[in-house]
Amino acid sequence: MPQYHAPLIDMQFLMHDWLKISEHYHTLGLQDFDVDLVNEILSQGAKFAQDAIAPLNREGDEQSCQLQDGKVTTPSGFAKAYHEYIANGWNAMLGSADYDGQDLPNSMAVPVHEMLNSANLSWRLVCMLTESAVLAVTKHGDENLKQTYLAKLISGEWTGTMCLTEPHAGSDLGLLSTKAESNSDGSYRISGSKIFISGGDQDWTDNICHLVLARLSNVPEGIKGLSLFLVPKFLPLTDGSLGEINQLSVGSIEKKMGLKACPTCVMNFDGATGWLVGEENKGLACMFTMMNDARFQVGLQGLGIAEASYQGALAYARERLQSRSPQGVAEPTKKADSIMHQPDVRKMLLTQKTLTEGSRALAYLYAQQMDIEKYAEAEQAHEAAKVIAFLTPICKGFMTDMGTDVSSLGIQIYGGHGYIREWGMEQLMRDSRIAQLYEGTNGIQAADLISRKLARDKGVMLTATLKVLEKLVGDIQLPASQEYAKNILDDWFSTSKLITTLDSVDQAGAAYDYMHYSAYSILGILWLSMADCAQQSNVASIKSGKANACAFYLKRILPRREGFKANLFNGAEDLLTPADNEFDYQ
Amino acid sequence: MPQYHAPLIDMQFLMHDWLKISEHYHTLGLQDFDVDLVNEILSQGAKFAQDAIAPLNREGDEQSCQLQDGKVTTPSGFAKAYHEYIANGWNAMLGSADYDGQDLPNSMAVPVHEMLNSANLSWRLVCMLTESAVLAVTKHGDENLKQTYLAKLISGEWTGTMCLTEPHAGSDLGLLSTKAESNSDGSYRISGSKIFISGGDQDWTDNICHLVLARLSNVPEGIKGLSLFLVPKFLPLTDGSLGEINQLSVGSIEKKMGLKACPTCVMNFDGATGWLVGEENKGLACMFTMMNDARFQVGLQGLGIAEASYQGALAYARERLQSRSPQGVAEPTKKADSIMHQPDVRKMLLTQKTLTEGSRALAYLYAQQMDIEKYAEAEQAHEAAKVIAFLTPICKGFMTDMGTDVSSLGIQIYGGHGYIREWGMEQLMRDSRIAQLYEGTNGIQAADLISRKLARDKGVMLTATLKVLEKLVGDIQLPASQEYAKNILDDWFSTSKLITTLDSVDQAGAAYDYMHYSAYSILGILWLSMADCAQQSNVASIKSGKANACAFYLKRILPRREGFKANLFNGAEDLLTPADNEFDYQ
Repeated sequence: MPQYHAPLIDMQFLMHDWLKISEHYHTLGLQDFDVDLVNEILSQGAKFAQDAIAPLNREGDEQSCQLQDGKVTTPSGFAKAYHEYIANGWNAMLGSADYDGQDLPNSMAVPVHEMLNSANLSWRLVCMLTESAVLAVTKHGDENLKQTYLAKLISGEWTGTMCLTEPHAGSDLGLLSTKAESNSDGSYRISGSKIFISGGDQDWTDNICHLVLARLSNVPEGIKGLSLFLVPKFLPLTDGSLGEINQLSVGSIEKKMGLKACPTCVMNFDGATGWLVGEENKGLACMFTMMNDARFQVGLQGLGIAEASYQGALAYARERLQSRSPQGVAEPTKKADSIMHQPDVRKMLLTQKTLTEGSRALAYLYAQQMDIEKYAEAEQAHEAAKVIAFLTPICKGFMTDMGTDVSSLGIQIYGGHGYIREWGMEQLMRDSRIAQLYEGTNGIQAADLISRKLARDKGVMLTATLKVLEKLVGDIQLPASQEYAKNILDDWFSTSKLITTLDSVDQAGAAYDYMHYSAYSILGILWLSMADCAQQSNVASIKSGKANACAFYLKRILPRREGFKANLFNGAEDLLTPADNEFDYQ
Repeated sequence: MPQYHAPLIDMQFLMHDWLKISEHYHTLGLQDFDVDLVNEILSQGAKFAQDAIAPLNREGDEQSCQLQDGKVTTPSGFAKAYHEYIANGWNAMLGSADYDGQDLPNSMAVPVHEMLNSANLSWRLVCMLTESAVLAVTKHGDENLKQTYLAKLISGEWTGTMCLTEPHAGSDLGLLSTKAESNSDGSYRISGSKIFISGGDQDWTDNICHLVLARLSNVPEGIKGLSLFLVPKFLPLTDGSLGEINQLSVGSIEKKMGLKACPTCVMNFDGATGWLVGEENKGLACMFTMMNDARFQVGLQGLGIAEASYQGALAYARERLQSRSPQGVAEPTKKADSIMHQPDVRKMLLTQKTLTEGSRALAYLYAQQMDIEKYAEAEQAHEAAKVIAFLTPICKGFMTDMGTDVSSLGIQIYGGHGYIREWGMEQLMRDSRIAQLYEGTNGIQAADLISRKLARDKGVMLTATLKVLEKLVGDIQLPASQEYAKNILDDWFSTSKLITTLDSVDQAGAAYDYMHYSAYSILGILWLSMADCAQQSNVASIKSGKANACAFYLKRILPRREGFKANLFNGAEDLLTPADNEFDYQ
């Protein structure tokens, strides 16, 4: 089982040297945040991730969750780790100070979230959804709802869930049939069944707040008739204590490919009491407040898993002795060389490394934009919101595809041992695979990117994103690197503009390719920017390591961009032409 | 759970229309084999795969195998299905008639093997290894060994295993430490521990024949000191009945990512009695007789899983109603259109289809070469052997990578449901993942292809393969298609020749890319050939379906070739340059 160590040196390089995060905080008027505080949070976060939850990950997969007499039990140690987590304030990092949150900038929390994902994705997921619930209630809840729920959700005393999917309605939420009826006291009765509810029940907290998308009667069909409700497991009394159990129950725990330590529940609401979040029939907009954040967080899951797999593979490659390397005997005192010397193994490791570190740069750049949206003045904040909107599907779609690919390479480096459960490498791939599916499949992300983000506003969000990247390119010192980056950027921008001229069917045909073409292009720019910045670093391995890794990325990985680009203007005719019976010759 | 139907229409198209298999048999002097016999075997094979073993696949994964008191129990129904399989002679298809085998051409058995892989990979694997054992004993065993074991292995009364890997020796068999000592009666005592032994024990048969690679004392180090032994679970008496149990035991059953219904054992040999297969110290050559066949068979596993996943995804896409298609309402009487109308979903399905059917064409072409090697006169047989040697690592490496990619797409088309075990789609991906690892990791396949197959004989095997493909290209009727195919072939051949001029380190750096560059090129030629041939078909969906699928392959999939080609002449310097501490900045 690979032992996880938070990649603090790379994280610090990105935060301090590359993003100059202390300057960034000061520009935003956050005077209390400096290098030392960042480092303290990183090192304490690393300690918690490494010591408290990583050791539970393998065993959690074996034990999985149990449902007995309607109650869910999570694997040994999970509840205890959660209590340590909330006692140390980790759950409250991003919550509003008005409700006892710490109001930290997102850029401080994101590296910690990455660590938690690397250490134990099943455990992390429940916390992540609570953070999303906090966002929705903070932004859309009325004063009463905030007073009752927000402090407890921020502290982590209670957790939150997202209840969207129904058996017949996933990508198309307009088909939801869960019903809501209003009570005379301003509350509502919710009835229906929801599936895939992560943390639908657990044995960590006294209460759980379900955010449920449901349909009132006599409302428009489709998504315009959806409203969002907060439905607690136990109904809080006015004094803050817990009253009766609500009319809801766990139908079953889903048996899944991975993420087995996370209780993914079928939830049945049988006239459960809930309260409206936001306005009637505006539920989807409220849900998107949660979902956009959750989408980026899911992207971070891909990154976290990729890092964990890379670390495992690297440690194994250094130890595993098989054959001699083709370039000559490397370890003459041993019976064979470590596979670390095999060019093909090194290619796999460098692929893992450059995709992981490139994605980390993208994620932290995104987090910096989240800070700007939150703290900067209106105009600048508005620009940052556009960048975030544009980059969200790329972070989610690309980084989760990447997580599965990289964790598959991690298995491959282990050879047959990678397939054996006790080593932990195959769990990473199984756990990673969900991230390509939930919070909108990656096909939905690609469609969101090309139609809602790129085409609908005719390139406004694109241009906002371009400016952020142009700034990075402008800061590159080495002229050849700057020119290289500028070429990638120009190619991407002009190609993107051209895509806005396509009709919606051709866009649908190009969507997935565009998402990946964009991601590989952006990562190319980020690598050139990082490698250039690293030349000022006084950590020798960063200086040479980022330069060599950048060269590898440009030579071996960036060309994938061409393959995706080649498909962008192919239209959709070849996709639509085949008749139904041509698929199976029936 | 997707219900498997053998793709008989495509199989028959390939066998009869494309390969003209009846003419091929007659050319080889196999007068008894004709269209009707092929169709009978295909349809009976389909019946067995669909009705007897496919229904056991999902439950087998849940039950997995148990070890109690040293004995292995396989999932419910597995033993019964095996008894039906051998009773109906399926196990004996390829065995020599001298030992009651049916001596069928490989091209007849391969489609059946594909079906078995699609239906239930765990079940199939045990049978597959018996076939490999039959090959080794047939080719290298002495008369006594053949008389004692061959008829029982061919009928399936006993099964066979391959015992190579040890904890410290997988890719590098030279490091094996299992010992053999000679007894005075001509037998040997084998001592050591082997891991990853598929079918190491089972509750299907009275006896199991382990083919064990071990080292005699005072022999050369490394692979030149390895000998192969047949070590039965029970020692046969001279009258053919079973005597004492041998000194061997099952240490444990490995817990794996997938393939859970296959008992993958740690086997301990404690002075077990065995008999030499072939000559002392020539064990690796004997083992390669098994392994080359097994490698192709593992490639077929990738194909089988891909087909099963494609069928599941296609059925689901036709049923699942979500949203309207961007090209307009397709199913106005329903609340939403089936996702079959979404361009992105169709792209995934067509990717699955073209990779699967292209791989099937490659596998059947390979099987035809196996027939030629077996039945043709010496010179022609020798040429076919070269083609087989060259194509083996491509079939194994490419088709198993393809199997995992295609089964991952199958999950993606199901959305969140793809991640849930009961649907069976995630099992296909877990089961498929092993095929990239065993019988030589795909990195080993790539190294084998570029060094042993392509470079060592300076292109002799390459040229033999070229001739087979040239014949296909020459037969293409439509001039534009022929020219397209010729361009792909020329590009591949000249690039391959150029690679023989690289030094061994640069070849190691290019190996994986070369394997995939070759596979995508060859599949391009096969698609053009199939689509052209299909124009003569009287099955309408074959005629238009192959043409449209070919167009899709050329436009959307073949360009991947360029990405791999771009990396072929990059050298290995960028792989070797990064210092060890640059990988993790320690």
